Amino acid sequence: MSKYDIIVLGSGPGGYVTAIRASQLGFKTAVIEKENLGGVCLNWGCIPTKALLKSAQVFEYLKHAEDYGLSVKDADKDFTAVVKRSRGVAEGMSNGVKFLMKKNKIDVIEGFGKLKPGKKVDVDGKEYSADHIIVATGARSRELPSLPQDGKKVIGYREAMSLKEQPKKMIVVGSGAIGVEFAYFYNSMGTEVTVVEYLPNVVPVEDEDVSKQLERSFKKSGIKVMTSSEVTKVDTSGDGVKATVKTKKGEEVLEADIILSAVGIKTNIENIGLEDVGIVVDRDKILVNDYYQTNIPGYYAIGDVTPGQALAHVASAEGILCVEKIAGMHVEALDYGNIPGCTYCTPEIASVGLTEKQAKEQGYDIKVGKFPFSASGKASAGGNKDGFVKVIFDAKYGEWLGCHMIGAGVTDMIAEAVLGRKLETTGHEVLKAVHPHPTMSEAVMEAVADAYDEVIHL
Amino acid sequence: MSKYDIIVLGSGPGGYVTAIRASQLGFKTAVIEKENLGGVCLNWGCIPTKALLKSAQVFEYLKHAEDYGLSVKDADKDFTAVVKRSRGVAEGMSNGVKFLMKKNKIDVIEGFGKLKPGKKVDVDGKEYSADHIIVATGARSRELPSLPQDGKKVIGYREAMSLKEQPKKMIVVGSGAIGVEFAYFYNSMGTEVTVVEYLPNVVPVEDEDVSKQLERSFKKSGIKVMTSSEVTKVDTSGDGVKATVKTKKGEEVLEADIILSAVGIKTNIENIGLEDVGIVVDRDKILVNDYYQTNIPGYYAIGDVTPGQALAHVASAEGILCVEKIAGMHVEALDYGNIPGCTYCTPEIASVGLTEKQAKEQGYDIKVGKFPFSASGKASAGGNKDGFVKVIFDAKYGEWLGCHMIGAGVTDMIAEAVLGRKLETTGHEVLKAVHPHPTMSEAVMEAVADAYDEVIHL
Repeated sequence: MSKYDIIVLGSGPGGYVTAIRASQLGFKTAVIEKENLGGVCLNWGCIPTKALLKSAQVFEYLKHAEDYGLSVKDADKDFTAVVKRSRGVAEGMSNGVKFLMKKNKIDVIEGFGKLKPGKKVDVDGKEYSADHIIVATGARSRELPSLPQDGKKVIGYREAMSLKEQPKKMIVVGSGAIGVEFAYFYNSMGTEVTVVEYLPNVVPVEDEDVSKQLERSFKKSGIKVMTSSEVTKVDTSGDGVKATVKTKKGEEVLEADIILSAVGIKTNIENIGLEDVGIVVDRDKILVNDYYQTNIPGYYAIGDVTPGQALAHVASAEGILCVEKIAGMHVEALDYGNIPGCTYCTPEIASVGLTEKQAKEQGYDIKVGKFPFSASGKASAGGNKDGFVKVIFDAKYGEWLGCHMIGAGVTDMIAEAVLGRKLETTGHEVLKAVHPHPTMSEAVMEAVADAYDEVIHL
Repeated sequence: MSKYDIIVLGSGPGGYVTAIRASQLGFKTAVIEKENLGGVCLNWGCIPTKALLKSAQVFEYLKHAEDYGLSVKDADKDFTAVVKRSRGVAEGMSNGVKFLMKKNKIDVIEGFGKLKPGKKVDVDGKEYSADHIIVATGARSRELPSLPQDGKKVIGYREAMSLKEQPKKMIVVGSGAIGVEFAYFYNSMGTEVTVVEYLPNVVPVEDEDVSKQLERSFKKSGIKVMTSSEVTKVDTSGDGVKATVKTKKGEEVLEADIILSAVGIKTNIENIGLEDVGIVVDRDKILVNDYYQTNIPGYYAIGDVTPGQALAHVASAEGILCVEKIAGMHVEALDYGNIPGCTYCTPEIASVGLTEKQAKEQGYDIKVGKFPFSASGKASAGGNKDGFVKVIFDAKYGEWLGCHMIGAGVTDMIAEAVLGRKLETTGHEVLKAVHPHPTMSEAVMEAVADAYDEVIHL
C-alpha cells in the first residue's frame, strides 16, 4: 500500500493547486483523478468557454469592421472550427497541469477514489493511505425535475461547449454566469436565443443596475429575455423540443432545437465514501471549519463540495490555505465577503462585495457612486461605451462595501477593488491613487469620486 | 475688466480638470484656450491615437480570423476612414469638455493668454484678473536640430495622426510611447516601418525585460528596429526622404516617404508672460513647490510645464491638488514615485515604480518575480500569450518597489499595483487577495508568488 503525506481527491482548480502547494511545502503528495487533469474548470468550464467567447468577440469585430474604418467580405464562422479551437485550448491546459504534476513530483493516480476509514483511499480496488486526505471532487450541472437532461435535446454546459452542429434555435434556462455566457456565444454565432430566468432579473446575484444593463445589452444584440418565468414542461417527442414557459402573463410554448439547462450545480459527493468514514454533510455540501477540516480528523474538503462560493479561484485559495495550515503556517481564514465574481459575455461583468440592495438590507448608511463608460475617453476610442462602474461605501466609516462593473475588460479590472478592500482602503485613497489616462480603469476612480460628489467627467 | 477667483491658462487634461474641480469648490473660474478645448491630449494625443490603435487591433483580428475558427475575404482597411473615425472620437470628446465647462459654469475665453503682473492675464488685447492664475499650457513635439520638421516629409505626432495618404515606408525616430504606438499602428496598416532609437533599448524608460519583449514582438510583426542608432542627416530633396543613420556598425542610409520625429516634447512657455511677471524657470520647466505655487504669489503652474512626468493623468492630479490647496483643504503632496505609465501598442505596456535596474542602483536588496502570460489560462483562451508581469519587492521590508507589465489589456491592470503601493501593501497581501479565475490579472498574483517562491503555475 502506497503511503503519502497528502492525497487529494480530484484534480480540478481546487485539487491540482492544492497538490502543487502541498508539494512546495515538502509533502509527498498524490492526486486522484477519474477523468481529465484540471477537472471541469480546465476541460469543461472556465477555460474552453473563454476560448469560445473569444471567437464570438472576434466574430463581432468581423461583423462590425466598418465601424473601425475597415472592410471585409463574407465574414463567416466555421462552428466546428470554433469548437475545435476551444477543445485545443482545453487540451493544452490539461497537458500543462500534467507537466506541473510531474515537475512538482506529484503522483497522479487515475481512477475513481473512494474514502475509507483509517485515512485510506480506495482507487478501483487499490488502496492508498495518507496522513491527510483532501476531498476536492467539485460539482456538475444540476438537473431540475421538470427539465431532465437527455444530453441531446436538453443539455448541460458540457454538451453545450462541444456540439457537433450549431442549433438554429436555443432556449437557455437560467441566467447565471454559465447561462448568459452561452446565450451570448450562441447568439453571436447566429443562433436564435431565448433566455428564461425564474427570478425577476438576469444574473440575479449581481447588483440590480448591472442586471438591467445586461438585459438592455442582450436585447439590443437580439437575445430574447424572459424574466420571472419558469419552464414547467418539456416535450422532446417531435423534431425539436417544445418548452412550456409560465410567465407573469400566462403560459407560452417555445420551440427550439435545443434547451440548455444552466440552473446551477450539484456537488460530486455520491459514492466517494463520506458515509463510510462518517463525514458530516449538510444538504449537498461537506461541512468544514475555517481550515477545511471535516468532523473526522485527517479528512479535509475544499472547493465546490464545501459551502463557500462555487468558483475556481475560491477552490484554489481554499486548497492553498488548507495545506499551509497542515504545514503549520500561520494562516488567516479566507474572507468570503471579498471574493470577486466574473461573467465573460459581452459586456463583461465583474463584482465584489455587497450589492446596493444587500448593503441597505444590512442596515448600512451608504454612499453610492456610478460612472458610465459613455463618459470615458478610452471607452469612446475603443468603441466600448456600454456599461459602468458602481461603487458602494459605508457613509460612516468609509469602508468600500461593494464594487460592481459591467463593460469591456472589467473582469481584469476588479482585482483593484479586491486588493483595495483587503487593505481596508477608503474612497479617498482610491481617489488619490493616480489612475493612468486614458484607461477604462479611470472609471473606478471616477465612480468613487461620484460617491463623494467630486466626479470630474460627469 | 472681468474678475475671477481662478483663471486657468490652457484647457488640456491639466487645465480643464483643474477648472472643473475649482468650480466644484465654489470658485468663479475661467479657462483660456487658444485652439481646441481638451488640448493636445483630447485632440492630438491620448484619445485620437487610441482610436487609431483600436482600428489597428481590429484589423489584426480580421487578418487572423482563421485563428479563431472564423473566415473573411478581402480584409482591408480604408486609411481615410480610420483617420476619420479617430478625428470623430476626438471631436466628440472635445464637445464633451465644452459641455462640462457649461455645466460647471466655467467661462471659456478663446484666444492666446499672456500673464501680466498684478495677477492679470491679457487675451489678445483684453484683460482679465483673478486671485489665482494657474498655468497649464502643456507641451508640443520637440524638434531635434538634426531633424527639423517640415510637416510634410518630416513630421510630428500631430501630422502623423491625420495624414491624408498612408505612407508606404516610414521611419520613426524615437521609441518612447508615442514612437512605438505609431510604429505599431502604421505597420499594422501595411506601412513598412523602421524604428530608430538612440539608446540601447526601445521604450527606454521601461524595465529592460519589457524593452526586450517589445523588441521581439515588434520584430515578429515585421517592424525593423534599430537601437543604439542615431539619425544624423536628413535629405528631403528627392521624391521621398533619405535619412543617414549612424549605428554601432557604421553608417546606413534609409529611404522612406516620411520620417516621424518622436523624440520627446518641448513645453509651451514662450510668450506667455513668464518673464514679465518674474516667474522662475529652469531650462524649459516652470519651478513650483509641492502645491504648484511658483515663486510669485498668486501664480501657479501644473502639468507638462512643471518638472513632474509629462503625462495627462499627472497634469489632472496636479491641478486638482493645486485648487484643493487653494481652497484650504488638507492635501497630501503627489507621490511622483507612484505614477503609472502606459503604452498602447500591441502588446500593451504598463508600469509603475522602480525598474529592476533602478532598484539595484538605489541599493535595494530585492526579490523579483515574473509570470509569463504563456502560462495563463485566460491568455491561452484569448490568444494573448505574449508578455508577462514582473514585480520587484524590497527583500527586507517587503515594500512593492515596482510592477512592470507587457501584454494584452495590461494598461487596465496596472491600477491594482498603484492602489496597492499607495496603501503600502506587502506581497503577502497581494497573494492572499483572491484574484478571479480565469483572468489576465491572476498573473499579478502569480508574479508576486514567484517572487516568494510560491508560484503555482510555473
